[in-house]
Amino acid sequence: MSEFELISRCFLPLTGNCAEADGLANDAAILPGNDQFDLAVTLDSLVEDVHFLASDPPDRIGHKILCVNLSDLAAMGARPYGYLMAFSLSQQRGGGTEIEAWAGQVTAGLAAAQATFGGVLFGGDTTATPGPTTFSITALGQLPKGQALRRSTARAGDDLYVSGSLGDAAIGLVALRGHLPDLAEVHHLELIDSYQLPEPRLALGQVLLSEKLASAAMDVSDGLLADVGHIAEASGLKAIIWEAQVPLSVAAEAAISVNPDLRDLPFCGGDDYEILFTAEPAKRALIEAQAEALKLPITRIGRMDSGSGVEVLTPDQRPRTFAQEGWVHF
Amino acid sequence: MSEFELISRCFLPLTGNCAEADGLANDAAILPGNDQFDLAVTLDSLVEDVHFLASDPPDRIGHKILCVNLSDLAAMGARPYGYLMAFSLSQQRGGGTEIEAWAGQVTAGLAAAQATFGGVLFGGDTTATPGPTTFSITALGQLPKGQALRRSTARAGDDLYVSGSLGDAAIGLVALRGHLPDLAEVHHLELIDSYQLPEPRLALGQVLLSEKLASAAMDVSDGLLADVGHIAEASGLKAIIWEAQVPLSVAAEAAISVNPDLRDLPFCGGDDYEILFTAEPAKRALIEAQAEALKLPITRIGRMDSGSGVEVLTPDQRPRTFAQEGWVHF
Repeated sequence: MSEFELISRCFLPLTGNCAEADGLANDAAILPGNDQFDLAVTLDSLVEDVHFLASDPPDRIGHKILCVNLSDLAAMGARPYGYLMAFSLSQQRGGGTEIEAWAGQVTAGLAAAQATFGGVLFGGDTTATPGPTTFSITALGQLPKGQALRRSTARAGDDLYVSGSLGDAAIGLVALRGHLPDLAEVHHLELIDSYQLPEPRLALGQVLLSEKLASAAMDVSDGLLADVGHIAEASGLKAIIWEAQVPLSVAAEAAISVNPDLRDLPFCGGDDYEILFTAEPAKRALIEAQAEALKLPITRIGRMDSGSGVEVLTPDQRPRTFAQEGWVHF
Repeated sequence: MSEFELISRCFLPLTGNCAEADGLANDAAILPGNDQFDLAVTLDSLVEDVHFLASDPPDRIGHKILCVNLSDLAAMGARPYGYLMAFSLSQQRGGGTEIEAWAGQVTAGLAAAQATFGGVLFGGDTTATPGPTTFSITALGQLPKGQALRRSTARAGDDLYVSGSLGDAAIGLVALRGHLPDLAEVHHLELIDSYQLPEPRLALGQVLLSEKLASAAMDVSDGLLADVGHIAEASGLKAIIWEAQVPLSVAAEAAISVNPDLRDLPFCGGDDYEILFTAEPAKRALIEAQAEALKLPITRIGRMDSGSGVEVLTPDQRPRTFAQEGWVHF
């Protein structure tokens, strides 16, 4: 049973078709709030040596655990309000002053991320675990009343866009594991930064919502192909991606030229935390203007069509296939 | 560094003194909602072989992971609204049809608990972990606007009460581990039920709030002494517990008579999920009437006084000491 079969067979019936869950199809649940705001609520667990490395600098771990949750809020167009954190400390991590210093630095990373992106700690839970240290974060965001970006609302003929560049974090993890010894130091560091310091695209999400630019959106966390597949499936459409348009950073291109085996990671790697969205072709100029205003590259990488599935087309219009489409948790 | 030092040194500064966190002193955060309700939000992680056993029947695991979170809502006087669940599946748990059957039964336990106690699934996250299977649940509850039971509002002279009986779950865990072979089967099963099937005291919490019976409240999850200590500390008071008044079930008494080493567990054992509360002496008759109406024993076990700390008095008024006051996570 795949993760997605588990969700559809086991978890979906538990929603009782409530509006808040919206078929478990989005990055966050949407709760009716007061007369000004609705609440976006998302919960993600981050496991040591699955979502971050035990050897990562602890302030960067603090940054990452909050920011990947804020990325879910960004994908809905929400503004960070606050969060709860459940902290399960590995019994293997020793104790005493060592833990005190480590936890202090994780906290410093959280504090810095809060200061940059918004939100404060509302509550949580601490416990010990015989397994790896795990953080679960519930992030709460404010949405303008009655509005939210969703995955299910793309239309045939819409353009498909992604922010930033793809594959950097996945290649950064390869670099962190020491498998890119021949890559220039500057690229090495940039790619590791992408893995350890994801930046939630909050300003972009909010403007896509407020200016009604996007017809559907989500964040890229499981890899481009998998996540485009989620928008296509939720919207009942087919997605076409133009291989040559998928944005790569200079560092990622350098890494792929050193090791061509990495060339699928911008499509299948995961951990990008960019925003993937669809928009009517009539919005192209407005979207370009926003990319300039936000100083954030936004690239048109394909389009939505009737049908189902995801097709990646090479420059000579032939379909390209991949061994594995995205991050599969189990 | 203890769990509580970690919370006060590292996590408390992250709250920015926001009202929602209320000094991280309660069972749940309180978020302003619409003009009728506020929202209580709590997040707890449950780790296999720490909070439940890998060998527990999976439907009972489903029941327990939701109900211990609903117990936090009960302690605030909230009504269950919905929940998010992050499910981290152990890579050791095999795969395929075995997992499918196990997850299906966990889901059935969740569905039954929802049906009994309220709430539906709003969202969540699934991931794999090299460690033990872990569930994190964010439970959301509705509170009457501007009202909530808190830990910090007990007054000197108040009575101290607890619902149900104490120690059953902790003794049940001893029984489950096979350490009570001489206990009668009927008691064995009752104690195991207490460990595996905690019942959130939602009706009691709601009536304590709506009838303004309690001055302060929380749920007993870390053991009576530790949790009475939390109310005392948050309220700036001393708590006195009369040893002989602490309510034991017939099954717990039978287990303690078979193995006297268990006699501290009603004080220090944890996992009780009963409601601990304080109330003015003028409320005694009203509280007795509610206990009858709810068909739930409510026992006056002590009182609050000026000072600090927790004192347990024997029937001849001498202080009793304990080796360990409560569940310490690390």
